[in-house]
Amino acid sequence: MQNLENTIDRIKELMDADTEQQLRDELSAYHSADIADIFQQLSPEERIACFTKLDEEKEAEVIEYLTPQLQVEILGDIDEELASRLISKLPHDDAADVLGDMEEDESQAYLDNLPEKFSSELRELLTYNDDTAGGIMNPKVLTVGYTMSVKDALETIRIKAEEESMELYYVYVVDKHSHLLGVVSLRTLLTSPVNLSISDIMIKDIVKVHVDDYQGHIADIFMKYQFNALPVVDLYDHLKGIVTWDDVQDVVEEETTDEILTSSGIVTDLGDDDDDVLTGSIAHAIKARTPWLLITLIGEFIAVSITSRYDRTFTALPVIAAFMPLLAGLGGNIGTQSITLMVRGMSTGQIALKSGWHYIWRETITGLSIGCIFGAVVTCVTWGWQHHVGLGLIVGLAMTLNMTIATMIGTCTPLILKKLKCDPAVASGPVIATTIDVIGLAVYLTLVTWYLISV
Amino acid sequence: MQNLENTIDRIKELMDADTEQQLRDELSAYHSADIADIFQQLSPEERIACFTKLDEEKEAEVIEYLTPQLQVEILGDIDEELASRLISKLPHDDAADVLGDMEEDESQAYLDNLPEKFSSELRELLTYNDDTAGGIMNPKVLTVGYTMSVKDALETIRIKAEEESMELYYVYVVDKHSHLLGVVSLRTLLTSPVNLSISDIMIKDIVKVHVDDYQGHIADIFMKYQFNALPVVDLYDHLKGIVTWDDVQDVVEEETTDEILTSSGIVTDLGDDDDDVLTGSIAHAIKARTPWLLITLIGEFIAVSITSRYDRTFTALPVIAAFMPLLAGLGGNIGTQSITLMVRGMSTGQIALKSGWHYIWRETITGLSIGCIFGAVVTCVTWGWQHHVGLGLIVGLAMTLNMTIATMIGTCTPLILKKLKCDPAVASGPVIATTIDVIGLAVYLTLVTWYLISV
Repeated sequence: MQNLENTIDRIKELMDADTEQQLRDELSAYHSADIADIFQQLSPEERIACFTKLDEEKEAEVIEYLTPQLQVEILGDIDEELASRLISKLPHDDAADVLGDMEEDESQAYLDNLPEKFSSELRELLTYNDDTAGGIMNPKVLTVGYTMSVKDALETIRIKAEEESMELYYVYVVDKHSHLLGVVSLRTLLTSPVNLSISDIMIKDIVKVHVDDYQGHIADIFMKYQFNALPVVDLYDHLKGIVTWDDVQDVVEEETTDEILTSSGIVTDLGDDDDDVLTGSIAHAIKARTPWLLITLIGEFIAVSITSRYDRTFTALPVIAAFMPLLAGLGGNIGTQSITLMVRGMSTGQIALKSGWHYIWRETITGLSIGCIFGAVVTCVTWGWQHHVGLGLIVGLAMTLNMTIATMIGTCTPLILKKLKCDPAVASGPVIATTIDVIGLAVYLTLVTWYLISV
Repeated sequence: MQNLENTIDRIKELMDADTEQQLRDELSAYHSADIADIFQQLSPEERIACFTKLDEEKEAEVIEYLTPQLQVEILGDIDEELASRLISKLPHDDAADVLGDMEEDESQAYLDNLPEKFSSELRELLTYNDDTAGGIMNPKVLTVGYTMSVKDALETIRIKAEEESMELYYVYVVDKHSHLLGVVSLRTLLTSPVNLSISDIMIKDIVKVHVDDYQGHIADIFMKYQFNALPVVDLYDHLKGIVTWDDVQDVVEEETTDEILTSSGIVTDLGDDDDDVLTGSIAHAIKARTPWLLITLIGEFIAVSITSRYDRTFTALPVIAAFMPLLAGLGGNIGTQSITLMVRGMSTGQIALKSGWHYIWRETITGLSIGCIFGAVVTCVTWGWQHHVGLGLIVGLAMTLNMTIATMIGTCTPLILKKLKCDPAVASGPVIATTIDVIGLAVYLTLVTWYLISV
């Protein structure tokens, strides 16, 4: 599908023209992921009209690719029996996610309608916290016994893979009580002599995660070791499920969004996470955006109260007031750059606390250099414009100091937050921006007042 | 490895104590990915001292996990013959990356020393652009002929997988001229009757990428369809290689970093991409950070020249100058929030141009609501503090207008940029922040002057 906008236009035309067969053909020609993309842009009525044109196999596939909100919406709109059938066709982890996003009584009703075995497995999955390994894993894992021969193992895989919708990444080796003992890659299995025992070819020293491990931690492990899948175990080392890279993909996108939103002062963790800032209610959006703005308000009122003490300075030379936004703007800007570099560097692992001093030093030199360049420019411009050398020098000096200090604060704060085991991304929030504002203004106004007194 | 900092301390102690055997044991107990992490925090001398303690198999593995800079550094420090041997043990795509990061004459020397077949394959890989499919793919793909039976195919895989270090994701089906005809999953292969023909069980309608496709595009396809691997073809549909999810992982991290750095006004695309803003020279860092700061400077000088026209207003009521940072700070803050939400929403695909109006409307309501709340608070505080109802009302009204306008600008700009086919992340840069500043100040000073004249 080359152009989403055009495709949507065509789909809408087909719906308006009431050419059902053509719409059916058009839709079934797309990959389920494309259809999910199209659905995102349709109205609820259009969505359900298109959805019912698909065959059941495709309906289940499309459900898998939809966002949680749309999954719940569509399953609520269609016939209840069909919805049950579709849920039972989903992989276990997706089915549990869908049910977890529904109201309690709604999901209970579905669970009661689903086949016994499937529903009891789902009930277990639903006991895990959403953002832990248990919440994102798939409990269907390909296992073989450690006493099997390679031949038996291959035969087992052949049978199991046919029976259940299971991804073939690695084959895990367990004892009869489901304790995880090792792992064999399919490659090893296919290339080993068929009468060797599994216990001879398995890797025993394996990386695994615990059902209660947080998803952010799991994503870090995936990024670092670049595995395709990780086994999930409980406290007693029983194999409980498998987390695959596509589960982690969603986690990484979620965590990146959190990092980015946090950095511009939007609270991403409001407790009610079925709602999101873009699609939830406007009240929710206001609730998410106000806290940091309130802190900015308090901080800027401190700036106001400091600045207001200099009213005689403003009366003596009113133009100095006009330079305040210039200083605040550039200080804030260069400070944000430093914070962003540090936060991102720490989140990709490039910067560790150990090398903190190196970066503080480096950034300070950078800030001082840029500050000197900009100070010189500002001095010249102000001098030429206001024909006032003294004012030019003072504004230029304030600019240099301001930019250097902003860089230092922007570099140190994320490191300090990390040291205190807080989220460094919080540094990009308004507290630091406001602090830089206040310090910048104080430096500038002190310099100006001192200059006015001394001449 | 639970704690990187402690591990590094212990490693350094072992190096100081000159207990070579213990250091050797300690290091070889870690996963190669852990060792790469540790190396990141050591000095060049410490790195090479540790590296030479590893056995050759492990050395090659560690090289694979290192950052490009460290790969080139270490290979340059060790014996040339050993370096050649290590390179020849890397997967093709990693080997090509390492050579691509070296100086031209250096990589030529290695290429001449490597086994004939390997070096000619690397030379072909090196002709592709770094950030295209050709630049990140692995040319070793598992293929079977379309006339083979399932039994023959399994036998072929068994032999090929043993010979070459090849990942087993999907098995691609080609004709004798290497034209890509279809794909079979290992699962299908293992569960199909052994005497069926491959052409009967292969999927013909496959998603593939072109050697010249940009990596960002490839990452989008992976995210959308959640594949483990994609085949790479040339113009004539010859199968040239395979891109796997771990290659894409690095791309996603790179693109996210670009998005985040761009959004705080750091130019990520300076042409010389072997250097990065955090680790490159300070001159490079200054070059990357100055352009947007200069634009801010020009913008803020416009603000200065507008503000300076109101010098009589400042003389009449000096305290109004003190409120300028308050208005600029909050306007900038809420505007940034809107920009961030829009840019992120577009980059995750949640917001399409089609639904642009919906979000403009939604954000405007949100901005107006928050603006009213903050306007009211500011009015009350100013009134109580300065005992001046008029001033309180003016500042409050300016705050409401300012926040509403900032939200609207912040919402519209990324959409307009996207419509113009520019990168919406540029909106977070300083042009918009400065525009919001200028408009906010103009509104405020106009209101104040009008009020002072009318009383």
